Amino acid sequence: MNSSLRFLVAARRCEIEELEQLGRTGTLVGVIGELVHALQKERGLGNGYLGSGGKRFAGERAAQLVAGDEALRAVHNALDALSLNAQRLHNGARLFSRVADTLARLGTLPHLRERVRAQALSPAENTAAYARLVAGLLAVVFEAADGATDPGISRWLVAMFNFMQGKELAGQERAFGAAAFARGRSGDAQRQQWLHLIASQERCFDVFLEFSLGDLHRAWARLQADAVTAELERLRRIGCATAEGATFDAELAAEWFDCCTRRIDAMKTIEDELTQGLRALCATRAEEARAELARDTALLARLEAAHGPAETQEATPLADTGRLAAATTLAHAGQTDPLPSTPASSQYGRHLERSVMEMVQEQSRRLQAMSDELATVRASLDERKLVERAKGLLMAHRRLSEEEAHKLMRQTAMNQNRRLVEVAESVLAMADLLPAPAASVAAGR
Amino acid sequence: MNSSLRFLVAARRCEIEELEQLGRTGTLVGVIGELVHALQKERGLGNGYLGSGGKRFAGERAAQLVAGDEALRAVHNALDALSLNAQRLHNGARLFSRVADTLARLGTLPHLRERVRAQALSPAENTAAYARLVAGLLAVVFEAADGATDPGISRWLVAMFNFMQGKELAGQERAFGAAAFARGRSGDAQRQQWLHLIASQERCFDVFLEFSLGDLHRAWARLQADAVTAELERLRRIGCATAEGATFDAELAAEWFDCCTRRIDAMKTIEDELTQGLRALCATRAEEARAELARDTALLARLEAAHGPAETQEATPLADTGRLAAATTLAHAGQTDPLPSTPASSQYGRHLERSVMEMVQEQSRRLQAMSDELATVRASLDERKLVERAKGLLMAHRRLSEEEAHKLMRQTAMNQNRRLVEVAESVLAMADLLPAPAASVAAGR
Repeated sequence: MNSSLRFLVAARRCEIEELEQLGRTGTLVGVIGELVHALQKERGLGNGYLGSGGKRFAGERAAQLVAGDEALRAVHNALDALSLNAQRLHNGARLFSRVADTLARLGTLPHLRERVRAQALSPAENTAAYARLVAGLLAVVFEAADGATDPGISRWLVAMFNFMQGKELAGQERAFGAAAFARGRSGDAQRQQWLHLIASQERCFDVFLEFSLGDLHRAWARLQADAVTAELERLRRIGCATAEGATFDAELAAEWFDCCTRRIDAMKTIEDELTQGLRALCATRAEEARAELARDTALLARLEAAHGPAETQEATPLADTGRLAAATTLAHAGQTDPLPSTPASSQYGRHLERSVMEMVQEQSRRLQAMSDELATVRASLDERKLVERAKGLLMAHRRLSEEEAHKLMRQTAMNQNRRLVEVAESVLAMADLLPAPAASVAAGR
Repeated sequence: MNSSLRFLVAARRCEIEELEQLGRTGTLVGVIGELVHALQKERGLGNGYLGSGGKRFAGERAAQLVAGDEALRAVHNALDALSLNAQRLHNGARLFSRVADTLARLGTLPHLRERVRAQALSPAENTAAYARLVAGLLAVVFEAADGATDPGISRWLVAMFNFMQGKELAGQERAFGAAAFARGRSGDAQRQQWLHLIASQERCFDVFLEFSLGDLHRAWARLQADAVTAELERLRRIGCATAEGATFDAELAAEWFDCCTRRIDAMKTIEDELTQGLRALCATRAEEARAELARDTALLARLEAAHGPAETQEATPLADTGRLAAATTLAHAGQTDPLPSTPASSQYGRHLERSVMEMVQEQSRRLQAMSDELATVRASLDERKLVERAKGLLMAHRRLSEEEAHKLMRQTAMNQNRRLVEVAESVLAMADLLPAPAASVAAGR
């Protein structure tokens, strides 16, 4: 029984380490949220600066860049903490590859900022460039959610990822709407893309609601029912429901931008609640696992007191096979003659052995239930994986950049009035009919 | 770029460690195969001993117990090696819980052997008791296959698990058929259970063939076409196709047992090939990953030579945030003024940076492809998971032991002429209609 219990203890230790690493991942996700928020503000101010020909927002933008650097530093610190324990990280290879990719993208930030300062790009180009950076950061959050081994924490990370994604789409909608109102006229293509941005956003918040609980639901309901959202819906109606070729009031662009900004800032407070909740959840789960470990090790001590420590009890053929191999019950395995006489405390010992057996079985049941729940939570990530796979396929077969592939799929979805994931499914279903792909993708198959 | 490359290197290191742990897991799976084979022999000899009222096989059995102990020691050594690196183990909590469960079962082996020696149980009880031990060991192999992060190795482990499971079913069929021939008469229920054992076995070998390659396919084809298999099929036909109440020749029991034993021993040589192949595969993959790591670190050194090491290059606001945060490109992020003057070797440096970007993207694509393949391979494990879940549900709702739950499901499958997994699906689909479960299972949901 000692031998069995030792592995139960080893299993608990693994669990605690996983939970501690999840705690560090949670910290990373929190600071990524801050950086994303800073980049969203930077994007908004940059668009204002570019749109006004450099006349407005120069000062606000300079201040925001400083705040952005601070957020960037915090992300680097969190990455440092995570990489120091890299070998203990579940899913480390994938997560760190994602981080490498994201850091490579962030490496272009100084150049991007310089181009904005020099007014060398349009607001639309600026929006797209920042969206790429944010997408890279969100991919790290996605990987963290996909790699979490605790279903409760995984659930929370899925809620967070979707909330952050929804907030980013709200930021993109702000830029898109501001440009539309500034352009001063409505149009079918513009309306279609706007409605698509709203629908994608709402799907993200639906998933967030599905995977989050009480307080967060109430906070979201409050946000949805407030005056800012009412104003947003009014402006959306004007922007999206006006007949082809109608003109917009010039004032609307600024109104729209302010309204969206207030809403995004309100979202940030919910995101902060999510971050704090995640931290608390990781701490609680690690605490629970530590309490279980303490219970197991206490039982192991009592077992060793009853049977003597596993290492020294008997000189059997198994005694030389090391710490674990020498455990009490297995030490008997070498004997084919009648059972060895049990120690005086055997009654007590047998009672303990039953406890161990029950603990082992309970642990099995618990892991089974956890594994089932984890599978359910992860299934919610499958849609995004399908889209990513389809994108990769298009990139390989049609030699497109990631952005072009995404744009092509999004455009197809809009034209066919289907969801992005449905288009992705069609692309993947067609895979066998496409010409042979480039070598690097084929290699893995 | 340095910063990005550092994480690419960290990702490779994680991958190498995962592969090294997979190598140790592979060793464990190999010695588990040996122990299973030894227990299967022990079971067969035990049945002969019990069936002959202790008159035959006493000597062979005693020799086999010694061999069994040796195999048990090897398993313990492999577990030792694995647990020394426990914190680096992907899926450690689940694997070690499974190990704890299996060791608890193996702890009953001395008692079981003693009962056989004292002829205190029937051959059928003996078969069932050893089957429980083997099932525990195979569950560890299953967990290893499910936890592997490399798709090629995962595929191989899936092939191995199914082969080992099929071989165990062949062992159970040997015991079942020997008892049937010894009993001397045919019957519907007996025939039905026999056919069920054959069908389950064939499904295992089908999956093995699906997930294995060339040499192994040929070895299996040879085994299927040899005289032993022809003899087996002849005996199966006599055993299963004889009309209700017909009598069997008394000689058949021994013929059947010998034929099955020869076939199982032949299977063992294929299993040995699988074990060696797994070891070679793990070594090759680790080798490849190390070569990739060497390439990355060489590039990192060239980058640092071109740009100066990341830590010392510039005194920027980011310099105090540690090793990774201070990386070259991100160090520029604090500056909003024109781009800093590039070093003299900038042309060379920019070329290197493009290489890094390409490597990061290639790595992303590779991980995406690996992840897709892994998902496909793991899907093949889903059937067993469904059966396990359904079993757990029946245990909780109907307060059955694991064995009773399995028996109930198997019996239902036979009565309804359906596959076990289909019965499991029905059980799970009915879950909501069942009364409230015991607390321990409900807790995880």
